[in-house]
Amino acid sequence: MLWAIELEYDGTPFMGWQRQKHGVSIQQVIEEAAAHLRGGEIPAVTASGRTDAGVHALAQIAMLDLPANFSPSRIREALNYHMKPHPVVVLRATPAPPDWNARFSAVRRSYRYVISNRPAWPSIEENRVWHVKADLDDAAMHRAAQTLVGHHDFSSFRASACQAKSPWRTLDALTVERQGDHLIINAVARSFLHHQVRNMVGSLKLVGQGRWPESAIPEALAAKSRAAAGPTAPAGGLYLVSIGYDPPLQFEA
Amino acid sequence: MLWAIELEYDGTPFMGWQRQKHGVSIQQVIEEAAAHLRGGEIPAVTASGRTDAGVHALAQIAMLDLPANFSPSRIREALNYHMKPHPVVVLRATPAPPDWNARFSAVRRSYRYVISNRPAWPSIEENRVWHVKADLDDAAMHRAAQTLVGHHDFSSFRASACQAKSPWRTLDALTVERQGDHLIINAVARSFLHHQVRNMVGSLKLVGQGRWPESAIPEALAAKSRAAAGPTAPAGGLYLVSIGYDPPLQFEA
Repeated sequence: MLWAIELEYDGTPFMGWQRQKHGVSIQQVIEEAAAHLRGGEIPAVTASGRTDAGVHALAQIAMLDLPANFSPSRIREALNYHMKPHPVVVLRATPAPPDWNARFSAVRRSYRYVISNRPAWPSIEENRVWHVKADLDDAAMHRAAQTLVGHHDFSSFRASACQAKSPWRTLDALTVERQGDHLIINAVARSFLHHQVRNMVGSLKLVGQGRWPESAIPEALAAKSRAAAGPTAPAGGLYLVSIGYDPPLQFEA
Repeated sequence: MLWAIELEYDGTPFMGWQRQKHGVSIQQVIEEAAAHLRGGEIPAVTASGRTDAGVHALAQIAMLDLPANFSPSRIREALNYHMKPHPVVVLRATPAPPDWNARFSAVRRSYRYVISNRPAWPSIEENRVWHVKADLDDAAMHRAAQTLVGHHDFSSFRASACQAKSPWRTLDALTVERQGDHLIINAVARSFLHHQVRNMVGSLKLVGQGRWPESAIPEALAAKSRAAAGPTAPAGGLYLVSIGYDPPLQFEA
């Protein structure tokens, strides 16, 4: 039977979501744990999308075949038991709806990027934030971010390795908000290009520092060239926050 | 010249604040870094109070002798450079006021304790929270906590190793607040006994689980016996949040 699971993970020690020849991936940890529930047979686990090495998830959604006679809480407890001590946990599980697919049924993806904006490097939040010493103008960053919202060719913010057929995406929201020493950047879209959030953040940071005028963001977008935009922000500041489905997945309370 | 420094640290890898024969302490890391600014001579660094192994600080205050011709930002940058990669950073520094003492001039200490209250163990927040699976009644915990506020003999919540002359303390505030899956417990007092916050939290958790009635908290207090209270909550959930002085320390912006 097909199950949907909601996952939280610390991306720091992993090569990313996808199985790799060298190094441990999140997919591998889940698949090997799931094999214990399937008499040793390793299933294929598919996520809503692949997160890169170092990127965290607060509520990634994945699907996999597991016995129908398990309860959602038993699925959660059993997988968590076998995944320890890897920092990956199942928060919730539910039988998948008919014709549902973790990747193709997703209609909304939300990411958060966190910058620690202060002189001292982050001792408690290392690998959880991007440390930027220079005082960032969050209001200028937010204004510039609004020029990226909408339906655009995002070639300038797309990794060269991106395998998407089209560079066109619809960015539903991109906000920059200061909370004390932290800058919180929230991005929402049906789907993103590879590295799109980190490339947008890397460019907005240049605006925040005053190295780029706000107008440089729409100019970079219009150039449709990766070279026209800023560098890729580090992976450790990025969190996959939620995946939306229509109708929403129904987890038990 | 005497300087006051504001420190953030991840307590996880340390034996605690105080120098130990076996294992690295926060005090040792700071003293050895400071020696680089003093021609190799290791100074004594005194904090507002000693935190235990595994306890974190968001703004611990300490004092030490450093050259008068350094600027506050140079003190911060130089100490942070030499303390790397230990997870201890100076957030701010300022010349100490006349007759000021990091420990004895402190008039208010604020601690925060964080519980992750959900079925799955915390992958991203490991060593940063206490994981309690059982659903906790935060309102009952908050009500019970109010019976500890005030001037009391806190013998029941005091570590056997506590070196304080008197078990009497004035607890100014003790609040329990739920924020999603997190329970945030804030405690404020002029000073605390050894393990006092963790012992109060360990007892309140029993109330939250329904294993103790709310009335068991004032009864434990009245018993004036460590055996009458609950177990000590784990160190990793505890944060030293701030130290108050009168007049307040003036850090440059």
